[in-house]
Amino acid sequence: MSSRQTIRDIRTRVFHVPLEEPMQDARHGLQTFYELVTAEIETSDGRTGVGYTYTIGTGGHATKAMIDHDLSPMLVGHDADDIDTLYDEMQSRLHYVGRGGIASFAISAVDIALWDLRGLRQDLPLWKMAGGAGNSPLTYRGGVDLNYPLEKLVESVAGYLAQGYRAIKIKVGKPDLAEDVARLRAIRELIGPSAKLMVDGNFGYDLERATAAAQAFEPFDLTWFEEPMEPDDFEGYGRLASATFVPLAQGENLHTLQEFKHAFAHSSLGFIQPDASNCGGVTGFLRVAKLAEELGIPVCSHGMQELHISLVPAVPNAGWLEVHAFQIDRCTHRPLVVENGRAIAPDEPGTGVRFDWAMLEAYAVG
Amino acid sequence: MSSRQTIRDIRTRVFHVPLEEPMQDARHGLQTFYELVTAEIETSDGRTGVGYTYTIGTGGHATKAMIDHDLSPMLVGHDADDIDTLYDEMQSRLHYVGRGGIASFAISAVDIALWDLRGLRQDLPLWKMAGGAGNSPLTYRGGVDLNYPLEKLVESVAGYLAQGYRAIKIKVGKPDLAEDVARLRAIRELIGPSAKLMVDGNFGYDLERATAAAQAFEPFDLTWFEEPMEPDDFEGYGRLASATFVPLAQGENLHTLQEFKHAFAHSSLGFIQPDASNCGGVTGFLRVAKLAEELGIPVCSHGMQELHISLVPAVPNAGWLEVHAFQIDRCTHRPLVVENGRAIAPDEPGTGVRFDWAMLEAYAVG
Repeated sequence: MSSRQTIRDIRTRVFHVPLEEPMQDARHGLQTFYELVTAEIETSDGRTGVGYTYTIGTGGHATKAMIDHDLSPMLVGHDADDIDTLYDEMQSRLHYVGRGGIASFAISAVDIALWDLRGLRQDLPLWKMAGGAGNSPLTYRGGVDLNYPLEKLVESVAGYLAQGYRAIKIKVGKPDLAEDVARLRAIRELIGPSAKLMVDGNFGYDLERATAAAQAFEPFDLTWFEEPMEPDDFEGYGRLASATFVPLAQGENLHTLQEFKHAFAHSSLGFIQPDASNCGGVTGFLRVAKLAEELGIPVCSHGMQELHISLVPAVPNAGWLEVHAFQIDRCTHRPLVVENGRAIAPDEPGTGVRFDWAMLEAYAVG
Repeated sequence: MSSRQTIRDIRTRVFHVPLEEPMQDARHGLQTFYELVTAEIETSDGRTGVGYTYTIGTGGHATKAMIDHDLSPMLVGHDADDIDTLYDEMQSRLHYVGRGGIASFAISAVDIALWDLRGLRQDLPLWKMAGGAGNSPLTYRGGVDLNYPLEKLVESVAGYLAQGYRAIKIKVGKPDLAEDVARLRAIRELIGPSAKLMVDGNFGYDLERATAAAQAFEPFDLTWFEEPMEPDDFEGYGRLASATFVPLAQGENLHTLQEFKHAFAHSSLGFIQPDASNCGGVTGFLRVAKLAEELGIPVCSHGMQELHISLVPAVPNAGWLEVHAFQIDRCTHRPLVVENGRAIAPDEPGTGVRFDWAMLEAYAVG
């Protein structure tokens, strides 16, 4: 039929976007840039949908190669609106080299472009397509600040409060637990008792140290302790949860629906934090959200706030939108704005993420 | 010190090697070629080690891109003999885009090249470096034969017997279970009661169908039922194992040590089948083998028989060497020979896998 939007071409790019200042967490070492991989899908009706993923510094070229060599040949000629079918076919085609890893990043970028096309075609914004429960997520600001001296940490968090944030996440994982505790005490004093406070361990702990840390953090009324241990130590999370009343959270490093199922089955999580850039795009995010809804677990997000702003509030079990230190939104025409702790999802058709290609061009590496 | 062998350069290639005839199993559709990705590591002492991985048709270019862009820059300048350290650093560097998938394939290729270099330098064959328990593995022949009519299947297995095999694996997963049973009956009659017989489901079953199949297969004295269900449905395997006395096996699609740990904890496997091309090379294979040894589980292999021939018999818990239908050994100067059901590992220094580059050149795609 004439209204079919057949996929005609997929163009991919890789950018190394510099960070305003180098960052460090418990495990990833010093980072000076992030990788942005874009996938533009052109359809027979003349539309172009834009998808993307990002990494913390490796894998961008492999992601591009996988889209170019393995996904494009299977997608060209198909109806761009058959998203669920194409999603399952991509997963199946990449199963042997996939079930996570680069395959998840590549599929995510393509899937986001397909949702953008659907929105453009149906004249609907992403938050409505994704469920429409709401468009204004509770928002927190996370810093990559483990290497900040205490004074700089306090200054940085004070800056977030001035920007309108009412919820703050800091990194933990100092060699001396007492130092983390002192930092948390200072931040809780700064933000007051009603603001929300989270911590992120970036899997720097083993079970014994994580247990000691969680118990030491209990006086600071934490909303959650994020990713204390290796993300795939599902049973370890369950044991930790039984030893503390601080809720546990993770998800940014879970890349397949099956991994999320393992986490839901064994890890006693208080919050789940999928990242649409690496768990299968909008389709992957919504499948995780559905599982979480059945279990009564709030869905938060990791990274790419400019996209998750439309996904987190759209589902009935909306949790918190992370505003990540990788500010991809600054490379778009709609940098995020937060007022009284909330952000507002775009109402324009598609994902609402429109890159400033002129700005990005200087960072192109592939 | 002068005997350091510093990594100077890593060269990668991608080949699409045609299969002698198209193949089909329960899930992967028709295949006409396999992908071979090679990684040649040159060191400061003038040696070149050769590593490689393979895929069933996708991911080869992404694997090459990851070695070129993400692994080479971190490896050049380091001592090639610090294998364990380099292995852990590669895993750590790729963690965010890894924990399996393409990262495991890329690390595998590099790790195999490092072991080749170690053998060349120490004048030791791989089977001795890997433990030295033995050099002559029990060997079985697996066909990708689900699409073969019964007569052709019988003919094919008869050919394997004539080549010296005393253990045979066939694919199962026909829509009608009775057809699988009829095929098994014919093959068991052909090979006689003393030959070993295995079946491979290529995760084509759900738990209900797998249970019915396993129970229907019980009269045929199977050594194992391989990968009946999705490889990461660890608890599903456990439930299946409790419903049949046919031993279960899997491993070719487990890409991280943590995935193997999940399988050992939940899946009640009778055999484990790591593939050094996608579980972290020689280092990854030996780490899995060590875990299995502690649990008393025999270690078998999947694919790349020209390399596994030196790994399977070298460990104390040696299981079966698979001779896979992707005959990479035919692209080397030492095609596999089987006599009385056993093969013999090469005694030459290094991995003993020396590619026929002139033959491969015609299949180069990257």
